[in-house]
Amino acid sequence: MDAHELITRNAAEVVTESEIEALADDPEGKRAYVGYEPSGVLHIGHMLTANKLIDLQEAGFEVTVLLADVHAYLNDKGSFEEIRHTAERMRDQFIAYGLDESNTQFVLGSDFQLDDDYTLDLHALELETTLARAERAMAEISSGDSVKVSQAVYPLMQALDIPYLGVDVAVGGMEQRKVHMLARDVLPSIDREPPTSLHTPLIADLATGRGKMSSSEGVTISMEDSREDIESKVNDAYCPPTADPEPTDDGAERENPVLQVFEYHVFPRFDAVTVERPEEYGGDLEYDAYDALEADLESGELHPADAKGALAEYLDRLIAPGRQQLAE
Amino acid sequence: MDAHELITRNAAEVVTESEIEALADDPEGKRAYVGYEPSGVLHIGHMLTANKLIDLQEAGFEVTVLLADVHAYLNDKGSFEEIRHTAERMRDQFIAYGLDESNTQFVLGSDFQLDDDYTLDLHALELETTLARAERAMAEISSGDSVKVSQAVYPLMQALDIPYLGVDVAVGGMEQRKVHMLARDVLPSIDREPPTSLHTPLIADLATGRGKMSSSEGVTISMEDSREDIESKVNDAYCPPTADPEPTDDGAERENPVLQVFEYHVFPRFDAVTVERPEEYGGDLEYDAYDALEADLESGELHPADAKGALAEYLDRLIAPGRQQLAE
Repeated sequence: MDAHELITRNAAEVVTESEIEALADDPEGKRAYVGYEPSGVLHIGHMLTANKLIDLQEAGFEVTVLLADVHAYLNDKGSFEEIRHTAERMRDQFIAYGLDESNTQFVLGSDFQLDDDYTLDLHALELETTLARAERAMAEISSGDSVKVSQAVYPLMQALDIPYLGVDVAVGGMEQRKVHMLARDVLPSIDREPPTSLHTPLIADLATGRGKMSSSEGVTISMEDSREDIESKVNDAYCPPTADPEPTDDGAERENPVLQVFEYHVFPRFDAVTVERPEEYGGDLEYDAYDALEADLESGELHPADAKGALAEYLDRLIAPGRQQLAE
Repeated sequence: MDAHELITRNAAEVVTESEIEALADDPEGKRAYVGYEPSGVLHIGHMLTANKLIDLQEAGFEVTVLLADVHAYLNDKGSFEEIRHTAERMRDQFIAYGLDESNTQFVLGSDFQLDDDYTLDLHALELETTLARAERAMAEISSGDSVKVSQAVYPLMQALDIPYLGVDVAVGGMEQRKVHMLARDVLPSIDREPPTSLHTPLIADLATGRGKMSSSEGVTISMEDSREDIESKVNDAYCPPTADPEPTDDGAERENPVLQVFEYHVFPRFDAVTVERPEEYGGDLEYDAYDALEADLESGELHPADAKGALAEYLDRLIAPGRQQLAE
């Protein structure tokens, strides 16, 4: 797989394609980053962007993981000391998950976000950015009166993080695209380069196939799950025999989250996937690419129950090192 | 004059009266502050709040003057070094104007506004304050699309300055009242005391009696004015023979700025005011309080031209020490 393919595979969006092509021509020493609020335990959402970081490392990128302790502190997640401890646990799990330790820089927000020059640049960005523009970058447009000033300021901090971390590419889920577009718009106003960004897709809720899989609601999978937990959650997952399910009776769009997890979590990390089946049901199935597995589910050759069994097996393999790390 | 009278005279508003009364019962060692963006040269607007600071010093208060170099820097007023030099010139003029040097602390914004704990508290305030609440505190409600994020953040900085300066009373012109009301509302959300505030009146434009006298438009008087400049500006001032002029033909409210400057600038600083007149026009007039002068203008006993002559004389006396300071 060439650098461009590694960089862009499974990406929902790159901004811009021509910038990514230029980076793919010479990715060595280029830098990419993802930011997370330290939570202590990796879940499947972290793993999705981590897979992309691993792709980027394989393509020659240097990778920075920003652990946003300042934001965690402001969100009442504990003292700075407690949050830094949480961040260290998270760091260990990322390494256990498969990030290349020798080529991953873990940075705390407090390493630079409270420095004089950062604070001055943030105020300069606040002076250059209209509230209307900042509001368009908010994660969710809350109903008028409940929007906080922080919801206008934090996206500017995320924008400013990019030049302060010295990275070429900002990676995040599709929910980050508005912030990254803001960064492209506003950073030139303080004489900084507009950053390239790369977004991973949103994965539907495991149990219903609707909305977005989230650590805060619905079913998620984390490094704390036992093999039994994973089997139980995957067994209960929504998995019609198609990649394109019908909407619900009340019109809500649905995806097949079992297929999505195969596509975005399993196949990027394993050269081949084996679905074990008794001989009487046709014996094992082997896939070296996602499309073939999807096609077999659509055709009926692969039964959803067997797909789920295989998914639990591979998810467990992905999670086992982090689970082990947490137990130590 | 007792402490309460010194503290409240010529104030357009105190918030709250009962808090001011409690401070007036024991003003020794209490602290008050005003903030200014360093401009290098004092003008009549600075002198208005400075008169109130002098009142407060006479009542026993300690006074802090915040010279907001961070904001000046962000507003492209020069390098920090240049702005600090400007701030020092301004400091010297305040002392020349009459602030008690032994009891006035001059503080630069950069002395504390870039510190880690201030930055964290500012982000905490941003998290606690709705945009709708911050918008109500903006100096002017600009038309929707041009409002900047800074216009939501700066009032929160002004609020936070109050506990960081450790002051009991925030002093400012009436244009600051919205910011001080915001401070009262939001500081308790981060476990800080709501501050008492005291606002000086707005003075109308000298030439027209309309709107607000401003250093940025219309006629102003500054420490750079020669005696001849002052005479010329006061001579051209709007001064009908009444304290309550008719509105303009298109309905704009008007004040008598000559009387306002007597009331808020001259009488607080001089025990008595002499209007010199030739014997043939009735000879000199002596006033030991503003009301008598206003009554004589209303009755026709005092001609506007003579009132202007006296105003130029006393303004010149107020400005002379600062002009001298600038010349050195």
